[in-house]
Amino acid sequence: MTDSVKYVLDETRIPKSWYNLQADLPKPLPPVLHPGTHKPVGPDDLAPLFPMDLILQEVTQEREIPIPEPVRDVYRQWRPSPLYRARRLEKALGTPARIYYKYEGVSPSGSHKPNTAVPQAFYNKQAGVKKLTTETGAGQWGSSLAFAGAVFGLAVDVYMVRVSYDQKPYRRALMETYGARCVPSPSNETQSGRAILAQRNDHPGSLGIAISEAVEMAAQREDTKYALGSVLNHVLLHQTVVGQEAMAQMEMANDYPDVIVGCTGGGSNFAGIVFPFLGAQLRGGKKVRIVAVEPAACPSLTRGKYAFDFGDTGHLTPLVKMHTLGSTFTPPGFHAGGLRYHGMAPMVSHIKELGLIEAVAYHQTKCFDAGVMFARSEGILPAPEANHAVKGAIEEALKCKEEGVSRAILFNLCGHGHFDMQAYMDYFAGRLTDQEYDEAELAMALAGLPSVKEAA
Amino acid sequence: MTDSVKYVLDETRIPKSWYNLQADLPKPLPPVLHPGTHKPVGPDDLAPLFPMDLILQEVTQEREIPIPEPVRDVYRQWRPSPLYRARRLEKALGTPARIYYKYEGVSPSGSHKPNTAVPQAFYNKQAGVKKLTTETGAGQWGSSLAFAGAVFGLAVDVYMVRVSYDQKPYRRALMETYGARCVPSPSNETQSGRAILAQRNDHPGSLGIAISEAVEMAAQREDTKYALGSVLNHVLLHQTVVGQEAMAQMEMANDYPDVIVGCTGGGSNFAGIVFPFLGAQLRGGKKVRIVAVEPAACPSLTRGKYAFDFGDTGHLTPLVKMHTLGSTFTPPGFHAGGLRYHGMAPMVSHIKELGLIEAVAYHQTKCFDAGVMFARSEGILPAPEANHAVKGAIEEALKCKEEGVSRAILFNLCGHGHFDMQAYMDYFAGRLTDQEYDEAELAMALAGLPSVKEAA
Repeated sequence: MTDSVKYVLDETRIPKSWYNLQADLPKPLPPVLHPGTHKPVGPDDLAPLFPMDLILQEVTQEREIPIPEPVRDVYRQWRPSPLYRARRLEKALGTPARIYYKYEGVSPSGSHKPNTAVPQAFYNKQAGVKKLTTETGAGQWGSSLAFAGAVFGLAVDVYMVRVSYDQKPYRRALMETYGARCVPSPSNETQSGRAILAQRNDHPGSLGIAISEAVEMAAQREDTKYALGSVLNHVLLHQTVVGQEAMAQMEMANDYPDVIVGCTGGGSNFAGIVFPFLGAQLRGGKKVRIVAVEPAACPSLTRGKYAFDFGDTGHLTPLVKMHTLGSTFTPPGFHAGGLRYHGMAPMVSHIKELGLIEAVAYHQTKCFDAGVMFARSEGILPAPEANHAVKGAIEEALKCKEEGVSRAILFNLCGHGHFDMQAYMDYFAGRLTDQEYDEAELAMALAGLPSVKEAA
Repeated sequence: MTDSVKYVLDETRIPKSWYNLQADLPKPLPPVLHPGTHKPVGPDDLAPLFPMDLILQEVTQEREIPIPEPVRDVYRQWRPSPLYRARRLEKALGTPARIYYKYEGVSPSGSHKPNTAVPQAFYNKQAGVKKLTTETGAGQWGSSLAFAGAVFGLAVDVYMVRVSYDQKPYRRALMETYGARCVPSPSNETQSGRAILAQRNDHPGSLGIAISEAVEMAAQREDTKYALGSVLNHVLLHQTVVGQEAMAQMEMANDYPDVIVGCTGGGSNFAGIVFPFLGAQLRGGKKVRIVAVEPAACPSLTRGKYAFDFGDTGHLTPLVKMHTLGSTFTPPGFHAGGLRYHGMAPMVSHIKELGLIEAVAYHQTKCFDAGVMFARSEGILPAPEANHAVKGAIEEALKCKEEGVSRAILFNLCGHGHFDMQAYMDYFAGRLTDQEYDEAELAMALAGLPSVKEAA
C-alpha cells in the first residue's frame, strides 16, 4: 500500500452547529476595550461595523451555535472536505508516523476562508445590508468574500494591499470574476488612505492599513458593513466545522491525533482544526499536543508581546488582548501573505498563555522545501501559508522516525497554491530568500503599544 | 432552495473497470494505417512507443477492461468526483431545465487528464520503462503526466508548445514542482525540432510539432516510451470512469439526462462523460441527445474532413481516420489551448459519422460570457476549454426556457481555470477577441491530406 487514503463524509455529516471554545475555557477571555475609555465595549459599540447576530456570536458562552440551513446549503458545495492519510509522504520520509491532513483547498476560492465568508454574508444579508467592505493581503480572504457576496447578492469592496494588488493580478481577476470591486490600498477613497499617501505616494500598503480603509468605509454608511477574515471570535467559531469533521473522519480511520499542527497568521485555520479537539480535551477527553507554526519573519506568538493592541494601523478598531508585534510593525514581504499580520486571534493567544498549545517559527525556504516534497508525494500543491503546516507536520514525523515511535499527526492543509505559482518559480530559480524583520523596528513597535491599565 | 446540490459516491463506487464503447458500436472503427504501406498497423508497429498493455487496450473489443488496483488506489485521492445540480445557475437563467455538471477539476492537476495519466504511467512502470515523453499545449496534460510520473517514479519530459511555455510559466512551474523536465518546442533536441527551427528560428510551435518531438525521442530509446493525453482509443477508454460515475450519480438524483454536453479538442473528456451513456443507449437503453461543443476557430467536427490523416506535423505517427483540418493547419492562438488540435479522436469522429452525436462551434468571447456567469452562480471558475461546455449547456437550458419544458442537461466541467487567469484578465479588459482561422490555409491543409485508397 503506497498511497493516500481519503476519508469522506456524506453531506448529512456537515456539522449542524459551530463549536464555541469559550464554553470550555478554564479561564474566560479578557474583554475587548474601547480605545478611548479603555472600558469593555458593548454590542452597540460594534453595531456600525457588524450585524447583531455576529456581534452576539463574538461574546456568547453557548457551546453549540446552530448553523443556519441556508449556510449549510452553500457549505454543501464543498463540505464535508476530505481528510487524507498521507501514505506516499510517509513512505518518502521513511517515518513510522501516521500523517493525516484535512484539505480545505476544495472550496470554490481554494481555502478555508469561505467557511466564515458564507455565514458572514448570510447574516449581513438577513440584516438588510447591501454592501460589505473588507481588506485582503494575499487575496484568499478577498476572493472568498467575493464568492459569498455573489451567492447572497451583496456588493463587495475589497481593499487589497497595493503590493499584492500589483504582484497578484490573478487573485484580483478572480475577485472581479465573482463580481467584487478591488481597490489597491492605500487608496484615495478614505481618510486613512489619503493620510498614508500624503506621507508616501508610492506606499506599498499593509494589512493594517487596508483594515483601516475598509472599516472607515463601513462605518460611514448605513447600508454597508465590514467583514474580517480572521482574528475575531466569530470568525474562529465558523471555522470549527473543519475540526468537527476531522474528528468524525479520524474516527472513520479508527485513529486519534497525538499531535495537531496548524499554521497561524490571524489564527482562523488553526482554530478551525484545533478547537473541537481541544474542547474535547478540556471536557475530560484525550490530551493532544497542539503546535502552531508561524513565519519566522512575522513571529507574533513566539516573539510578540501579550498585550492590548489595535487590530489596524489607523487605530480605528477596539483594543484586543493578543500576542502582537505592535500595530506599526511592517513584516518583510515574504510569500505567505496570509500570515503577514502583526497580531494574533485573542482566543489563540489566550490558550497559548494558558499553556494549552505550543508555537514554533520557520523561515520560508524551509517551508517551501517541505511544500515541494509534499506536492511530489501527495500531488496537491499547497499555498505558501499551508507550507508552514506541512513543514511542522514533517518535523513531527521525523521526530517519530528518530524515536522509532508511531504517532498520529494531523494537520490542516488550509489551501492550494494555484494562485501562488510565482513563489514556486522564485523557489526553483533560487530567488527565494529568508527575510529577517528589523529588530529595531520591532522594538519600536512594541514600545508604542497603548498603555492599558487592566482591571484585576 | 437556491443552491447547488452535490451527489457524492463513496470510494467503493470508483468503477472497477473501464467501459469500452467498441464492444457496442453498430459498425467497427476503421483500422489505423501504416503511413508507408497504408496497410493496417499491428501491435508490433506500435511497440516502440507504447507498452503492450496499452496497445491491446487500443484494439480490444471487450466491453469491460478491469482497472488495476494500484490505479484505483491513486484514483481514490479525488475520485469519485462530485456531480452537482447547478441550482444557482438555473435560477440565474430563469430556466425550467435541470442542469447537472460533473466536476473533474478536483484532481491534483485540476482536470480530467490524470484519469488516463495514472494508468498510462502504471502500465509503463510495469513494463520496465524509465522515462515518458509527451507534448503539452495549455499544460493540463503535461502537468497530469508529471503528477503520475511522480507517483510511480518515472522521469517525464514534456515538450511544451513554445508560445505556451512563454505565456504560461505557472503551468510549467507546476510540472517542475512535480519533478518533470519541461522543454519549449520546437527544440534543438530532436530532428523534427531542428528542421522547424532551421526554417524559422522563432517558431511559436504547435501541438503537432510537439507530438513529433516527443514521439521521436521515445522511438530512439529502449527505456523511454511516449504518452498521449487524448485522441487514442485507450485514452478515451480510461476517461470512461467519468461517465460511469455520472450514471450512478444521476441515479442518486433520481434523474436521467435528456441532453449531454461536452467540449471537444482531442475528444477525451467528451468521450469520458458520453460513452457510458451512449453504450447504454446502444444496448437498448434510453436515447440521449449528445452535443459536442468545439471552438469556432478550430472546428474539426463541424468544418473538418472525415479522412485518414497524421496525428502530428512531422508525420511520424500512423494514419488515423478522423475529422481533420489537415495536419499542417495551424489554429489561431485562442485561449482554450487544450482545444487547439487539427484532428479529433477517431472514436468520436466515428460516432459523429454514425449520426449518434451532434456538434456545434462557438467563438471564445461567448464562451467566456458563459464561464463568468457560471463562476458567479456556482463559485467554480472553469478552464477556457470547459467554458465551451458551459456555453453549450446554457444554450440548451435557454431552449428549455423558450419552449417552457424542463429537460435534464448534463455536462462535463472538465477542469478549473486557476492557471488561465490571464485569459479572464484579457476578457475583463476587453482584450479578448474572436479569432477566425484562415480559409485559404484550411483549404490548403485539406488539399494536402494523404491520399489513401480504402478497402471496401
